[in-house]
Amino acid sequence: MEKIDLLLTNAIVLVMDEGFHQYEPGAVAITGNKIVAVGPQPQMEKEYTPEATLDCGGKVLMPGLVNAHTHIPMTLLRGLADDLRLDVWLLGYMMPVEREFVSPDFVRLGSRLACAEMLRSGVTCFADMYYFEEAIAEAVAQIGMRAVCSQTVLKFPTPDAADFEESLSLACNFIQRWKNHPLIVPSVAPHAPYTCTPEILHLAAALAQEFDVPLHTHISETAQEVENMRNEQGMPVVPYVKKQGLLEAKVLAAHCVHIDEGEIRTLLHAKTGVAHNPSSNMKLASGVAPVRRMLDLGINVGIGTDGPASNNDLDMFEEIRLAAFLAKGFSGDPTALPARTVLAMATRLGANALHLGDITGSLEAGKRADLILVDLSSLHNSPRFHHDPNGTYAQIIYASKASDVTDVMIEGKWVLRNRQLLTIDEAELVKESQQYAQRIDIFLIHREQSILSKLVAIGGATQEESYEMQAKVPLKDPAHILEALQQPDIEIIRQRHYRQYDTYFVFDDPQQCRLRYRADDFIIEKGEVTNVRSRLTLVGQASEYNFPQKVLLSRSRFIAPATQTLRFYREYFKPSRELEIEKDRLRYLIRFKGIEFYINVDTLSKPELGFFLEVKSRTWSRKDAEQKSSLAIDLINHLNASPEDNISEEYVDIVETM
Amino acid sequence: MEKIDLLLTNAIVLVMDEGFHQYEPGAVAITGNKIVAVGPQPQMEKEYTPEATLDCGGKVLMPGLVNAHTHIPMTLLRGLADDLRLDVWLLGYMMPVEREFVSPDFVRLGSRLACAEMLRSGVTCFADMYYFEEAIAEAVAQIGMRAVCSQTVLKFPTPDAADFEESLSLACNFIQRWKNHPLIVPSVAPHAPYTCTPEILHLAAALAQEFDVPLHTHISETAQEVENMRNEQGMPVVPYVKKQGLLEAKVLAAHCVHIDEGEIRTLLHAKTGVAHNPSSNMKLASGVAPVRRMLDLGINVGIGTDGPASNNDLDMFEEIRLAAFLAKGFSGDPTALPARTVLAMATRLGANALHLGDITGSLEAGKRADLILVDLSSLHNSPRFHHDPNGTYAQIIYASKASDVTDVMIEGKWVLRNRQLLTIDEAELVKESQQYAQRIDIFLIHREQSILSKLVAIGGATQEESYEMQAKVPLKDPAHILEALQQPDIEIIRQRHYRQYDTYFVFDDPQQCRLRYRADDFIIEKGEVTNVRSRLTLVGQASEYNFPQKVLLSRSRFIAPATQTLRFYREYFKPSRELEIEKDRLRYLIRFKGIEFYINVDTLSKPELGFFLEVKSRTWSRKDAEQKSSLAIDLINHLNASPEDNISEEYVDIVETM
Repeated sequence: MEKIDLLLTNAIVLVMDEGFHQYEPGAVAITGNKIVAVGPQPQMEKEYTPEATLDCGGKVLMPGLVNAHTHIPMTLLRGLADDLRLDVWLLGYMMPVEREFVSPDFVRLGSRLACAEMLRSGVTCFADMYYFEEAIAEAVAQIGMRAVCSQTVLKFPTPDAADFEESLSLACNFIQRWKNHPLIVPSVAPHAPYTCTPEILHLAAALAQEFDVPLHTHISETAQEVENMRNEQGMPVVPYVKKQGLLEAKVLAAHCVHIDEGEIRTLLHAKTGVAHNPSSNMKLASGVAPVRRMLDLGINVGIGTDGPASNNDLDMFEEIRLAAFLAKGFSGDPTALPARTVLAMATRLGANALHLGDITGSLEAGKRADLILVDLSSLHNSPRFHHDPNGTYAQIIYASKASDVTDVMIEGKWVLRNRQLLTIDEAELVKESQQYAQRIDIFLIHREQSILSKLVAIGGATQEESYEMQAKVPLKDPAHILEALQQPDIEIIRQRHYRQYDTYFVFDDPQQCRLRYRADDFIIEKGEVTNVRSRLTLVGQASEYNFPQKVLLSRSRFIAPATQTLRFYREYFKPSRELEIEKDRLRYLIRFKGIEFYINVDTLSKPELGFFLEVKSRTWSRKDAEQKSSLAIDLINHLNASPEDNISEEYVDIVETM
Repeated sequence: MEKIDLLLTNAIVLVMDEGFHQYEPGAVAITGNKIVAVGPQPQMEKEYTPEATLDCGGKVLMPGLVNAHTHIPMTLLRGLADDLRLDVWLLGYMMPVEREFVSPDFVRLGSRLACAEMLRSGVTCFADMYYFEEAIAEAVAQIGMRAVCSQTVLKFPTPDAADFEESLSLACNFIQRWKNHPLIVPSVAPHAPYTCTPEILHLAAALAQEFDVPLHTHISETAQEVENMRNEQGMPVVPYVKKQGLLEAKVLAAHCVHIDEGEIRTLLHAKTGVAHNPSSNMKLASGVAPVRRMLDLGINVGIGTDGPASNNDLDMFEEIRLAAFLAKGFSGDPTALPARTVLAMATRLGANALHLGDITGSLEAGKRADLILVDLSSLHNSPRFHHDPNGTYAQIIYASKASDVTDVMIEGKWVLRNRQLLTIDEAELVKESQQYAQRIDIFLIHREQSILSKLVAIGGATQEESYEMQAKVPLKDPAHILEALQQPDIEIIRQRHYRQYDTYFVFDDPQQCRLRYRADDFIIEKGEVTNVRSRLTLVGQASEYNFPQKVLLSRSRFIAPATQTLRFYREYFKPSRELEIEKDRLRYLIRFKGIEFYINVDTLSKPELGFFLEVKSRTWSRKDAEQKSSLAIDLINHLNASPEDNISEEYVDIVETM
């Protein structure tokens, strides 16, 4: 009779080993932080003399769930913005708020909130990727959870580092300090191939290899990412990261939604672990990963919740149910990913994917005592059938809920007992998180009130103001203007031909400016388009002042290159109306009586407004504007147009009043 | 100041009316079973003098959820069989168990279990379809829930009726008795177009119209159903049911997964309500309904859990989350079905789909007081943002859970208070349901032990036994046998040419028989195949007795037409191995010395075993068999084959020992 610390008895034991052993009634022997043995209760009682015995009351005793990919501090951004496209969600909401609020204090609180929620859904181990990972690791270790904590590296500045060198240095120090912690496995996370330079990928892989720690990254989450990679590098994402040496490390790759057979085999060969994130991939409409194929070939595919801002919770019971459903619903085969396989993904295979399979993920002798009790006697789990040995797995996947988890032990220590968290004060967390939410609300409410601050929030505008003097005359026929421009006292400095497509966003609030999205086609000759650029212009109130003869002084403008699509801006700014204007523009920069003017000869095709001459000039003061406007009238006369036809409206004003 | 019975205060009120009004803090005024008014709390407190006031503690106060389609007594079959294809699940498990166990007692208990679970997930109203609907209605009314209770009609015998006339008569009586009940709306449920005759559809529609009650049915759940309908009727399902007059009634159509634009418009025009069942459609891999398109056109689409045997629970919070996810994940558009729309589906639109929109589904004055409180202050709901008015809807859809429902009121009466069920004893239900599960387990364990009883369970065999005398001789060349058959003392009664494809299911247990699935191609001439039939034969132990010269007496057989596919039988019987044999067979029925024999001249092509002559005869006694076997030896001699080459094995035995 061997002495042990603790014998857990009277349980439906799901070992979740490769043989899928089950014991009912079963028992688990624990000494210190480790599992000594697992087996049928009568046999275990004969073989072991425990210091203490715990009757599990007929509950399921199984390995704790492994949340294979998440960003835990984002609990504090849960429900911040939903039902948006990935770019609007990320660039419009997540990143601006993160820039403003993410700090060691933020990640500490968010991590504690996340740990509490995960423990309540039976999670004992997870893989995190965020900023200030040192503070996260401290919070997690103090609560007593097991985690791979991955310090994020990006090619952009992050909340915790001015550049990627600083991020990598943070990661290096973090890894050295935490390398031998019993619960925390430190790791480096080059965020994704498209947000990292090849150099970052190389250096991160080298760092992970040097200290033999996992490397955590995002791979092929969206079809767009793969398309961009193919266009830019002539290959999909997995071969690209392999080329950068990334797969030399012990990689945990999140998502892998859009990968092909060859890429799957590359990941298999590299022993890369994969984290499947069904809720996030559905909510952001990224697609469904080829999970069944990856499993068939032998890849360790775990299941993750992803960050709670795109989920919106950390409930692994919802995640496993959805993983089972999606595999069936998308393949048309209801036998795909049966319950037993899904539960293996959420335990043993998940631990393997995190490269922690030797210490956790199943109830096997020698592994750490990371386990949970699940009560299957509740109403929504009733009744329970015994005729099929797979029935218990099915019950957990399809019927049971996070709220059925009653007890959680990690590293041999109870952290949840009878649904009570032992290392966390929940009420305090809820209260503190609400204080953060209020501050973020104020920030966003203020921002949302002004189109300009929304534009600034996405890094979309240089805050420069200028004024513009403008005179506009309708023309019967532009030909004589083009002739008149050849006069010797007009010096043509530059000449361009554009096709311009303008979309104006108009807002209900009359205080708001108009936002113009302009796509310029630059035409060389014979209509050939060589250069397309898109610009975003925030146009101030329609007219500041009208000079005699309706010369317009408009307040200009915040101008920025439009790096996102028109659709992005539409969904981000939510205009109440849109107006479209298309025109052909011959644009001249000329000098007339010592002053530079822009002359536009425009043909408006949408709507069909005909021909116009525009004379424009930048100006910096009222006085300067007055002088220039008077000169502009001279110029119009000089070009044989009629300055008395001058209209003090912009095209968009004409269109709006049509 | 108007007097009212009850004022609910200090709530985040989601009215779920067409204008999506919200009040925070809001209040709801109730008198008797009805809502008197809803509005901002300060205003409500000025306008009404309540008998009693209840402080809702800052919880969400919203209409109860409407579970738009389910089969509630199937709680007792929850987890009975999972990860199976629809036909195996339905024909192999559900229907045999239902035939054996479904009774008024069964549906009463199952309904009570279901009501308890639904109340705990915030459901106040649902649409049920099952057998013994009278007993279900009694149980539901006694608990105090609102429901459309639909008595099922099928063209087959059901647990509660010998034929459809009896079902319709049950439905008619049921409707008459319950027509004016405050909670129960009786209804008739022709199960589905493919399980009903046109006459049933006509009669059910007439019945529903006569009493002005809803008609509940399944429409286009699977692609196969639509394909069959197109093949058989030359049209998809919706036009077919319209032709039968079904859409004249107030129809609630469950699933509508595989319907086209024209069908959607037909349903719209007919004011048909639709129940979308995301979990069930995923789990059984049926597909995803075109929900967004139906909503865009104006159809009332509700959300249902479907029966708990295919879900495996009745959790509407899981259902609404999945509905939102699937719309996004399948369309690739993350803005599809935003949270607010999904919550409308689960409340107002669901009530409309059940044709109960005038009395429930939103918190509008005059409607019944059917409402719930949801606690959004729990850990997994924290924090809560206020900057976006859609945030509360998103929180409910994406983050909150059934366990956040604390209180439920139906028809002005509390049925759940502070998470305590007031009209149901849960512990008793769990215990009783477990007793049913034990009986069903015993039934299934017994059945699964014997291939024969599994075959009988799916109605697949006529239990007839017979014996067969068989002699088999290998041939070098079959041509001389064909010649020899022309001798005058052999009378050829009938002659056939087949191509036979046999699949043998072999089981580990030596006690088990072999199961043969045979597809026969009947060849007329020039190889033209005119008739294909499939048969299933349960072949007894290999040989009962060998007569001299190895004439075989085999125990035959349970023979049945194979109405399901080979794949079905494979997944249902789960053989440990399969053996395949293909052959060309010239089959003669002859008379020789006054006795009828079957003569088979076989060419085995898979595996390539060459040519064989078989002489067979049915027999009924050992003595008869002895006489016939001696005559068979004579016949083989007469055909110039060598009876001493006779082998006492069946082809499958030869193959198995290869």
